[in-house]
Amino acid sequence: MPTISQKAIQMPVSPIRKLVPYAEDAKKRGVHIYHLNIGQPDIDAPEGALAAVRNNTLKHVDYSHSAGNISYRKKLAKYYQDCGINIEDTEIITTGSGSESVLFAVFACANPGDEIIVPEPFYANYTAMAVYAGAKLVPIACTIENGFALPSIKEFEKVITPKTKAILISNPGNPTGHVYSRKEMEELAEVVKQHDLFLLSDEVYREFCYDGAETISALQLKGIEENVILIDSVSKRYSACGVRIGALVSKNKDIYNVAMKFAQARLSPPSYGQIFAEAACDTPQSYFDGVVAEYTKRRNIVVDAINKMEGCFCPKPNGAFYVMARLPIDDSDKFCQWLLEKFEHNKQTVMFAPATGFYSPGSGGGKDEVRISYVLNENDLRNAMECLELALKQYNNR
Amino acid sequence: MPTISQKAIQMPVSPIRKLVPYAEDAKKRGVHIYHLNIGQPDIDAPEGALAAVRNNTLKHVDYSHSAGNISYRKKLAKYYQDCGINIEDTEIITTGSGSESVLFAVFACANPGDEIIVPEPFYANYTAMAVYAGAKLVPIACTIENGFALPSIKEFEKVITPKTKAILISNPGNPTGHVYSRKEMEELAEVVKQHDLFLLSDEVYREFCYDGAETISALQLKGIEENVILIDSVSKRYSACGVRIGALVSKNKDIYNVAMKFAQARLSPPSYGQIFAEAACDTPQSYFDGVVAEYTKRRNIVVDAINKMEGCFCPKPNGAFYVMARLPIDDSDKFCQWLLEKFEHNKQTVMFAPATGFYSPGSGGGKDEVRISYVLNENDLRNAMECLELALKQYNNR
Repeated sequence: MPTISQKAIQMPVSPIRKLVPYAEDAKKRGVHIYHLNIGQPDIDAPEGALAAVRNNTLKHVDYSHSAGNISYRKKLAKYYQDCGINIEDTEIITTGSGSESVLFAVFACANPGDEIIVPEPFYANYTAMAVYAGAKLVPIACTIENGFALPSIKEFEKVITPKTKAILISNPGNPTGHVYSRKEMEELAEVVKQHDLFLLSDEVYREFCYDGAETISALQLKGIEENVILIDSVSKRYSACGVRIGALVSKNKDIYNVAMKFAQARLSPPSYGQIFAEAACDTPQSYFDGVVAEYTKRRNIVVDAINKMEGCFCPKPNGAFYVMARLPIDDSDKFCQWLLEKFEHNKQTVMFAPATGFYSPGSGGGKDEVRISYVLNENDLRNAMECLELALKQYNNR
Repeated sequence: MPTISQKAIQMPVSPIRKLVPYAEDAKKRGVHIYHLNIGQPDIDAPEGALAAVRNNTLKHVDYSHSAGNISYRKKLAKYYQDCGINIEDTEIITTGSGSESVLFAVFACANPGDEIIVPEPFYANYTAMAVYAGAKLVPIACTIENGFALPSIKEFEKVITPKTKAILISNPGNPTGHVYSRKEMEELAEVVKQHDLFLLSDEVYREFCYDGAETISALQLKGIEENVILIDSVSKRYSACGVRIGALVSKNKDIYNVAMKFAQARLSPPSYGQIFAEAACDTPQSYFDGVVAEYTKRRNIVVDAINKMEGCFCPKPNGAFYVMARLPIDDSDKFCQWLLEKFEHNKQTVMFAPATGFYSPGSGGGKDEVRISYVLNENDLRNAMECLELALKQYNNR
């Protein structure tokens, strides 16, 4: 039998995936699982967008333009302008997801062996996209004690080499929930400018900001407009992870033109998803106000509950819908598996993402941390936190 | 400014793409273009599939399983079984298009520098997927004179090296329309088995067979079940190129498991598209009978018209909805551009795909050939052929 490729072997499997069989077994035993492991919002999508798909009159479903329908790109440009980000429709490529945007961006800028600096912990699938292109992710440590704030310019300069091609950030952050301040973003711009790097800025949680925080887009930074590749998606914004519509935005014509070649190679993004996304551009601000109020409440429930538990620590971040919690555990992979395999409380348990998946493979980071997605309603979250508190006691006395 | 990557530079731009600005200009001049350049069927999609999307009751659009909804995979397995291909739902990964299936397949089997043999002319985007993985496509020449039949085993053996990892075929063929006979497929299986290769078999035109021809799936070949990676898509089958639902099918557990890692890295295929595709599995045979009758008629119109034109030759293939035609022209790229830029007849012109895009970049192949997609109605096709005949005279007397 012919052998599979080296990259296929290197392609990582996230710790969450490894837990799936245990979750399936728990369900078979009749145990209800509170799924705080995945970034799948439970909030209703905007009705106008859902209705646009239901009311479509397509008779055959054609390829769209490889950069997406022009009508959608024009509305999306308007959305960005309303966010205070100066973007034209000619600078947008509609993609089949934020993941596809990252794939195109990494391939557009990195040769095999090139290095991409990424504040750690970071979104697990960035590793996969780096493996595809043969690029190397170079982590730069952020710590739970200071809420995963960006390290100083000096820390970046310690890891910059002639191979460094880009910095990749997630803002608001997955898995940290941290929203970069203006000061942090300006320091980042300084590094990017000084060292002539690309800045890949994943801003898919743009609207999810709490306590008055605001997402400062990388495309709002002065002097690095041509260095920025903006990664975006409608998945989280509109509770529409399954529509598979993202965007790659760049003011750099070279980057735009080569990203278009990657886009053309896969012909077009999904047509129904574009109908959804175009209508979603008309979502009123009241929808987001409601979402932000709901997630603020949920975040507070989770963070407050965890900080009352013995030996636990959880910073209160101001964005996305994740928190990273430090727990008194030996190994977050084992603990998360144990929760599914051995623990139950009133026929219930809880599933988290082991934080090991958000640190460089083999680094040993994240062993006493889990990522908690607060994507369930208040009551479910309280039950889940009760499970966690009991579980920690049992786990450490087992 | 940081530089873009080498792969981004190597990523090809198909000759059709280069014609787009000329087509746009022609439209601005009020010239109607018969688009015989793209594989986008104009026939209505099955009403049941369209209705399933219109009647969906989603309140939020969630990620599906990375391999696609199990309900869809079960129905798709049934579809294959009805086609006489023994496939289980556990052997299917639902992808976001046939293109994505090719991407996963190439990355799963080829290391940078590995070689993939492909009968030439071949689908232009195979080159793009090879560039992604750093693999090298090794063409093996088929000729218009014998209808692009598969070369003998000896011809394959001439190009097989220790770097050869796979053979990639399109059956029924894009751009040739050729349907491989049982003898051709069995010879292919022999090469694959003898030399321990993967066989990537792109069968997205399975239903488009004429004059009693039948698609023999690579997965129906004996003794190479574990070598085959089946590439599929609902785009052509149901006139639904925009739903972006494909499949990668493999009975080889190693391939399946690594392809799943690539699938997980992009989370999930489109949800609305899966609703469409699942309902489309119930499409009655009468739909396909109608489609085949229509395309047979169209093919005959095009082939017969061309073979009556002076200095032209067009084999009559028995599949897909393409023919390759040899025309008395110096350069198919120039001719196709000239058709858009300089020619009009009753305010009409025609757009073809220059065949140069279906031969290895730089090989010089296809200079006197165009690919014609017969995806318009009878009347439009007759008008388009009239344009072609007049255009050839003018072009050669210009």
